[in-house]
Amino acid sequence: MKNYKIAVLAGDGIGPEVMVQALKVLAVVSDKFGFNIQSTEALIGGAAIDATGVALPEQTLELCKSSDAILFGSVGGPKWTSLPPAQQPERASLLPLRKTFDLFCNLRPGQIYPAFAELSPLHPKISSQGMDILCVRELTGGIYFGEKGRTEDAAFDTQKYSVAEIERISRVAFEAATKRRNKVTSIDKANVLATSVLWREVVERVAKDYPQVQLEHMYIDNAAMQLIRAPQHFDVMLCDNLFGDILSDEIAAIAGSLGLLPSASLNGSKFGLYEPAGGTAPDIAGKGIANPIAQILSAALMLRYSFAEEAAARAIEQAVASTLEQGIVTRDINATSSYGTAEVGAAVIAAL
Amino acid sequence: MKNYKIAVLAGDGIGPEVMVQALKVLAVVSDKFGFNIQSTEALIGGAAIDATGVALPEQTLELCKSSDAILFGSVGGPKWTSLPPAQQPERASLLPLRKTFDLFCNLRPGQIYPAFAELSPLHPKISSQGMDILCVRELTGGIYFGEKGRTEDAAFDTQKYSVAEIERISRVAFEAATKRRNKVTSIDKANVLATSVLWREVVERVAKDYPQVQLEHMYIDNAAMQLIRAPQHFDVMLCDNLFGDILSDEIAAIAGSLGLLPSASLNGSKFGLYEPAGGTAPDIAGKGIANPIAQILSAALMLRYSFAEEAAARAIEQAVASTLEQGIVTRDINATSSYGTAEVGAAVIAAL
Ligand SMILES: CC(C)[C@H](C(=O)O)[C@@H](O)C(=O)O
Ligand SMILES: CC(C)[C@H](C(=O)O)[C@@H](O)C(=O)O
Repeated sequence: MKNYKIAVLAGDGIGPEVMVQALKVLAVVSDKFGFNIQSTEALIGGAAIDATGVALPEQTLELCKSSDAILFGSVGGPKWTSLPPAQQPERASLLPLRKTFDLFCNLRPGQIYPAFAELSPLHPKISSQGMDILCVRELTGGIYFGEKGRTEDAAFDTQKYSVAEIERISRVAFEAATKRRNKVTSIDKANVLATSVLWREVVERVAKDYPQVQLEHMYIDNAAMQLIRAPQHFDVMLCDNLFGDILSDEIAAIAGSLGLLPSASLNGSKFGLYEPAGGTAPDIAGKGIANPIAQILSAALMLRYSFAEEAAARAIEQAVASTLEQGIVTRDINATSSYGTAEVGAAVIAAL
Repeated sequence: MKNYKIAVLAGDGIGPEVMVQALKVLAVVSDKFGFNIQSTEALIGGAAIDATGVALPEQTLELCKSSDAILFGSVGGPKWTSLPPAQQPERASLLPLRKTFDLFCNLRPGQIYPAFAELSPLHPKISSQGMDILCVRELTGGIYFGEKGRTEDAAFDTQKYSVAEIERISRVAFEAATKRRNKVTSIDKANVLATSVLWREVVERVAKDYPQVQLEHMYIDNAAMQLIRAPQHFDVMLCDNLFGDILSDEIAAIAGSLGLLPSASLNGSKFGLYEPAGGTAPDIAGKGIANPIAQILSAALMLRYSFAEEAAARAIEQAVASTLEQGIVTRDINATSSYGTAEVGAAVIAAL
């Protein structure tokens, strides 16, 4: 029987309680599809700071290195906001993980579920046409990791991109587009940034290998506007690290259902990190009402991208869809709902 | 009688036709309030490229230097999109003008007019609470003007900010907040950028001089999200050059009425550049149906900030409000309207 070792980093806030549901779903689905998931938990984020002084302890990193994938919850919360920005749980755990494992590719699907179109702040204006975007974000380059500096009087950051970095993320976007609606919108600020001019050139070169895919370039400011005016315009959005950070959150806001959106961070091998798009939601942590769907769907992405267990991934996604259709949802999706985290998790398992 | 010299740079697309209406309004209002506007037109943008080969001819720059303010239309269009990004009309005219005149402060009000709340893509979800944001954007620093470079294999841009640059734009934001709802949301990415850490420090120092103003810091990705979830949360948004570029367009999209939004670019002296937030709208150029309101309101901002003619500025703003209330609007505001550019302009004048 195939055996997959995963590092489970549940983190803070609602992280642990939604993770419980994802692990239950994984247990059932692995039974059903004949593979084994060997999961080991470790400290990360605020919980790790409290216990060890650092957000990403050496032991956690070692566990990740000896695992086939990382299932990540979410990190951070009011308890740690007074720390200097660079030491805050989210940043101090995610950035080193991305860099250590060269997770250059972040995939964030953003869609409006027809059954929950009214969740979108843009409802009813776009409900008829909907939105179904895949945001492909470069995750290990750009201004995040360029040289930085500080004097008494000034500070600087450097945004740097190499041809190779742009090329590999572009290929992911074009490949993804061929399995979707054959359209890539590449985001840049080529009228201002030298890196964007290079970005455009490389993207155009890669596009030649995908003649069936339509490529358009859009300035970041215009994209921030068009997402709101006509989200149905977009299929795959290809972004650098910073622009992808901004637009993927804008897309999530438009979808209106952060609790339903998973994400995958990949490095071209089978290894990957999977996490919900939303945060730790400290206001509802521990109450048993957090939405476990994004975490469950993140587990499905892990089965697909890291373990090539496509059938099992689909089974989870279909079980989630059927759970949603039955109206078994937490309060973030339907304010009058009386279902909690555990009930939604159980409903997904029942639908498997 | 006071005499104000203005450089009129109408530009491309709908620029010239909406400018005609703004100049008519200025003529009437100056008569009424007892000052004189001496306006001289000059080439800019695509029209200037066609006539002289460059987007900002020396002669135009000289005119601006000998003027008290610039009333700017809009520039660019499909005819020039095949030019290299750095030579495109918008960039090649606006960036040098900003730098030459040290226009470090860009003010973009973003509001939903109660009478036209249904224009917002977020209607009806936010119509009851509305949105009334002033975006204060740093305009002469940051990644726009830092060192850039390019090799065969890579490219880089540098984002740099000095304490002095951050301080002067912060003061503008806090001053503005005292005349509004006493709240400043400062946007940064302090968990990643060294410039943002400095930005935060300086903003906090400036905030001490304005104890009545509430200051909050928000990461750019979260701001892109919260603008859509709860635009009524914001009063003054204080942004660096790049983040302000992105968020001001997002705000405009949420307002849903680009044709109504003016902007001002200032340098701390009386000099300023005033332009509509929208573009050249090449699809409707020359048809006499473009919305002149944003250009007219830009002229009002000019009277306020460059000439301290507050009463005249208010008179224009009130005349615009009354025109809108009467339903005398172009088709971008009401698709079934039969009013054109000239009729809306005439209605504003009649309401003066
Ligand atoms: C925590 C932060 C550094 C991170 C980022 O900016 O990449 C987060 O916003 C994200 O998108 O995962
Ligand atoms: C044309 C471009 C350089 C400019 C900018 O990015 O500042 C424009 O988008 C704006 O906001 O005025």
